[in-house]
Amino acid sequence: MAKLIIKSGGAEGFAEWRRHFAACAPGLETIFWEAPHDPASIDYALVWDPEPGRLAAMPRLRCIFSSGAGVDGIIRDPSWPVHVPLVRMTPPGAAQRMAEYVAWAALHLIRGGRRMALNQACGRWEDFDHPIAPETRVGLMGLGVMGAAAARALLALGFPVAGWTRRSKGLPGVEEFLGDQALPAFLARTDLLVCLLPATPETRHILSAPLLSALPRGAMLVNAARGWHQKIEDILAALDEGQLSGAVLDVFEPEPLPPDHPAWSHPRLTVTPHVASLPSRAERARFVAEQIALLEAGGTPGPLFDPARGY
Amino acid sequence: MAKLIIKSGGAEGFAEWRRHFAACAPGLETIFWEAPHDPASIDYALVWDPEPGRLAAMPRLRCIFSSGAGVDGIIRDPSWPVHVPLVRMTPPGAAQRMAEYVAWAALHLIRGGRRMALNQACGRWEDFDHPIAPETRVGLMGLGVMGAAAARALLALGFPVAGWTRRSKGLPGVEEFLGDQALPAFLARTDLLVCLLPATPETRHILSAPLLSALPRGAMLVNAARGWHQKIEDILAALDEGQLSGAVLDVFEPEPLPPDHPAWSHPRLTVTPHVASLPSRAERARFVAEQIALLEAGGTPGPLFDPARGY
Repeated sequence: MAKLIIKSGGAEGFAEWRRHFAACAPGLETIFWEAPHDPASIDYALVWDPEPGRLAAMPRLRCIFSSGAGVDGIIRDPSWPVHVPLVRMTPPGAAQRMAEYVAWAALHLIRGGRRMALNQACGRWEDFDHPIAPETRVGLMGLGVMGAAAARALLALGFPVAGWTRRSKGLPGVEEFLGDQALPAFLARTDLLVCLLPATPETRHILSAPLLSALPRGAMLVNAARGWHQKIEDILAALDEGQLSGAVLDVFEPEPLPPDHPAWSHPRLTVTPHVASLPSRAERARFVAEQIALLEAGGTPGPLFDPARGY
Repeated sequence: MAKLIIKSGGAEGFAEWRRHFAACAPGLETIFWEAPHDPASIDYALVWDPEPGRLAAMPRLRCIFSSGAGVDGIIRDPSWPVHVPLVRMTPPGAAQRMAEYVAWAALHLIRGGRRMALNQACGRWEDFDHPIAPETRVGLMGLGVMGAAAARALLALGFPVAGWTRRSKGLPGVEEFLGDQALPAFLARTDLLVCLLPATPETRHILSAPLLSALPRGAMLVNAARGWHQKIEDILAALDEGQLSGAVLDVFEPEPLPPDHPAWSHPRLTVTPHVASLPSRAERARFVAEQIALLEAGGTPGPLFDPARGY
């Protein structure tokens, strides 16, 4: 019986994963990351932020699955076993979820959703003027599978959409800005910036003061990619001084965001707990079960992380 | 010089209206509702919830404008001067705004936006499973200009959409349920109910226990029409007992919602202050200025309230 070790969501999370795998892969044995076990007996690993060295100590490991949309929490382990296929979590609903999150975040920002939530907390009835979608130029950083789905949703809501990307994607209705030399022009025309970039060395801390100050005054920001991309103190400063009028951040460093972090209480910042494109555990378990069945039948899993591209 | 009297948003609101009219209609004199004036000198009125009898006491009144999307706050005055044209506030952006609000509210409900806001208030990092748009069957009550725009936005986001309406509208992609006899079937297939009905005697308190209990258990509710349509105590009870899993209400009776009303603090209810399709004051002022220019040139304003239809 193949063995899958799981580190995602603690003991409570493991209980849920076990239940879902029992339903969709009854022939699979699931093992909690913190439970006693023989590392040499493990065939598969489903992990988020595994402690460095743990994966390398599993000699039979045939495949690693990231339990979330990125793999950066795995590959930052210097001893990460590069020879083992690393599958990116891409159940069919992930792009749809991201599109829904980005659409929600964009509407939440133009509608003043944070201000309305704070008003609700103190029983304050207050209307205020706000822009509509056709008046709000969205700029997407990153036009991969997630970005393309987000672009379609935003265009359908009436937002003008541009994208900043290395190579042209030819998405209908999306104005493209290609490469580093086009970044200033892209930022200058962007009222609402959405970061959907992969976490690579080039994109480290891209959402910091120089970039934010190149946006029009009062611009809005969504980061649904990684905490890796942002300098949170620069974002808080830009919100304080009005360079940004609002932000929705789904990602942080570290995660979970510590309970006493000033981001939680900022009146123009909405915090969500890294849920932008998080499929349900049931969907993710089905995806992993299908990949393992494929492997057991001699097939090739995928999509795999590509170290050369960095995502 | 034509005189426009204004009751909308109090003294603070009037100052803003005056500024906008000065920009778009410099030949118009604006008068605050509470300021001393001769009622016989007033040509036009821009009002929300005027005290009964005040409009009837203006013998020269040539046209009444509602400052919001409905006219119920005007026509419930028994002395409302029926012979004076009553223009519904319909600047070009109103349907777009409503579509954006309904899209925001629907995404906010399936994403657990209220739960995330309460978590943010106490620095709690918690993810939870939630449905996606294609799994959430939306039911629109009312397929007028607002409903049609909302349907288009929801369909583009991936929601299956049905509509309950008196007469077929033939909207692409929208399943139709016609008339009272189709209401039970419409409710039985609706996971997320959106009320966009006009306020007529037939729709009084339609959102009450019998209707709510005909929805699938755990359904969600958006009311972006009028407080007229809802029994708030029935909605709160349905939320408490789990028949409704969440609600977004933009409208109440009375408005403003009193600061001590239990709706403000319900953990599964999001309160917004009657802003669903509220255009900016600048847009509304331009619309009224254009209508007045039309009238002064001998033209016919519109769209007018039709007492026979009730909207």
